[in-house]
Amino acid sequence: MGIGIDIGGTAIKGGIVDHLGVIQEERLVITQSQLGYDQVLNDLVLLIKELQQLSPKEATVGIGIPGILSADGATVVSCPNLNWQNRAVKQDLERALSLKVLLVNDATAACIAEAAFGSTRGRSSSVMLTLGTGVGGGVIINDRVISGAHGVASEVGHMIMEENFYDCNCGKNGCLETFASATALIRYCQKRIAEGVGTDLKANENFDARRIFEAAKAEDSLALAAVNRLARYLGWAIANISDLIDPEIFTIGGGLSSAGDFLLEKIKAETVSRLTYPAFAMPEIVLATFKNEAGMIGAANLGRFI
Amino acid sequence: MGIGIDIGGTAIKGGIVDHLGVIQEERLVITQSQLGYDQVLNDLVLLIKELQQLSPKEATVGIGIPGILSADGATVVSCPNLNWQNRAVKQDLERALSLKVLLVNDATAACIAEAAFGSTRGRSSSVMLTLGTGVGGGVIINDRVISGAHGVASEVGHMIMEENFYDCNCGKNGCLETFASATALIRYCQKRIAEGVGTDLKANENFDARRIFEAAKAEDSLALAAVNRLARYLGWAIANISDLIDPEIFTIGGGLSSAGDFLLEKIKAETVSRLTYPAFAMPEIVLATFKNEAGMIGAANLGRFI
Repeated sequence: MGIGIDIGGTAIKGGIVDHLGVIQEERLVITQSQLGYDQVLNDLVLLIKELQQLSPKEATVGIGIPGILSADGATVVSCPNLNWQNRAVKQDLERALSLKVLLVNDATAACIAEAAFGSTRGRSSSVMLTLGTGVGGGVIINDRVISGAHGVASEVGHMIMEENFYDCNCGKNGCLETFASATALIRYCQKRIAEGVGTDLKANENFDARRIFEAAKAEDSLALAAVNRLARYLGWAIANISDLIDPEIFTIGGGLSSAGDFLLEKIKAETVSRLTYPAFAMPEIVLATFKNEAGMIGAANLGRFI
Repeated sequence: MGIGIDIGGTAIKGGIVDHLGVIQEERLVITQSQLGYDQVLNDLVLLIKELQQLSPKEATVGIGIPGILSADGATVVSCPNLNWQNRAVKQDLERALSLKVLLVNDATAACIAEAAFGSTRGRSSSVMLTLGTGVGGGVIINDRVISGAHGVASEVGHMIMEENFYDCNCGKNGCLETFASATALIRYCQKRIAEGVGTDLKANENFDARRIFEAAKAEDSLALAAVNRLARYLGWAIANISDLIDPEIFTIGGGLSSAGDFLLEKIKAETVSRLTYPAFAMPEIVLATFKNEAGMIGAANLGRFI
């Protein structure tokens, strides 16, 4: 059993996760980041104490955070969603709790959930790509999470691919997430529609990534071009990552992964064409097992992968 | 003390390396790859036995090979320089020797030499980029060499950057080594000269990378453009590698590293401008310590980094 917390911009979710990766108890509080750091911290302490009462033997709590941690995992360097900067979260929580606190980036927590109980279970090296509003990632080598010398490893979404028509939120141009996220899909379609390209996607109506995938499956030429473009950059990134660390398996998670095999097969084909040794060093590429619970499940199992 | 062997296309070098990384004894035989695998293996056995007599307590020999190894490090999957394919080198050598045999890619051996005694000593995570005829690499994380699930990690030179005007030897287009090797420098200058660009580099005379760096330092505009181009792609690759695994330090080796700080400062500037978190996550970037002996020194210390 383990206690895992997933801090999001709208809610803080906490769960007691059993040895099979099943959430036995779940609690939720609204993230009141507008009331400041102390309020969120206080809500977090109450949530954890409640879970602790349900599972009194726990000695550790793992917490997934949507931001950048220091290399020692003790400080939240930057977390725009919560408006936190350089907060000593581990120390502040351990003062208020009788538990050891482990912090981890939320994309890395999802990667751990897959490695512990999901699509990459039993593999000692894996890379997760989380395709949502942005592109997040997690890297596990020799059964250990790679957090990096400065705490900023697995920022896969910010690898620069080539020039793009809009800048990334991070301030750079050409980041993978501007080619391979839900935002990237939508912006590409909007741009092409503005240029006069015909499509079943209605220009005046708000369309989301799900609608683009539906249209692509129905062979709308713009939607299909947008999905193929996304798959091309993902295959390119996967091939480059393989050249560097050659993981056994890649897993694709996040909202876009619900496009399923339609997307997966395209990504595989684009990867093969860019690998240096496709004949004997093709990594497995699969869809992630967990959806919204991944953060909690991974956080509860963090200790096994540090 | 340790025995390290560096197999090259022209010579096989063997050395006894002491605990400070100094080569105490060195022996060399010509690589007779034209006479076939058995001949090279026989020469290798004789060389190792000679070194073993000089240092009888050794239980292990490390061997750097200019090719691709299987994930278990036992088989040479491909080594074009020696014309070896799928050779069970570890088993064949251990049958003929009373030593345990460890095999490693030669660029990785150089990376280990730097980590054990050179520019990256004492750092638990480092990446080496070896800039020569091609671009080789080595990756160390948590004090362990990353060889990959299929044995093909650290093929940094084959990460695809963008389209280039000539194809890589590997068959792909856009590989880092077609932008950032001695070959890349020379071909870029030749192309620009053919296009009519003025330069102090003589088009009719064979110029090498050393000559291009000299001309760049003397502010020849073509040579300077060529060096700046090379630095730009290296900075780009270093930033992307940092986004993925965030190593503490990068070290630049190989023949081109003799260009020294002139090249190093350009690479640093190009890296900073592409990092996601330049303010707090800039890796150190330094020049490698060892030259031609790196392979032997690293091979002799392989056991510490596996």
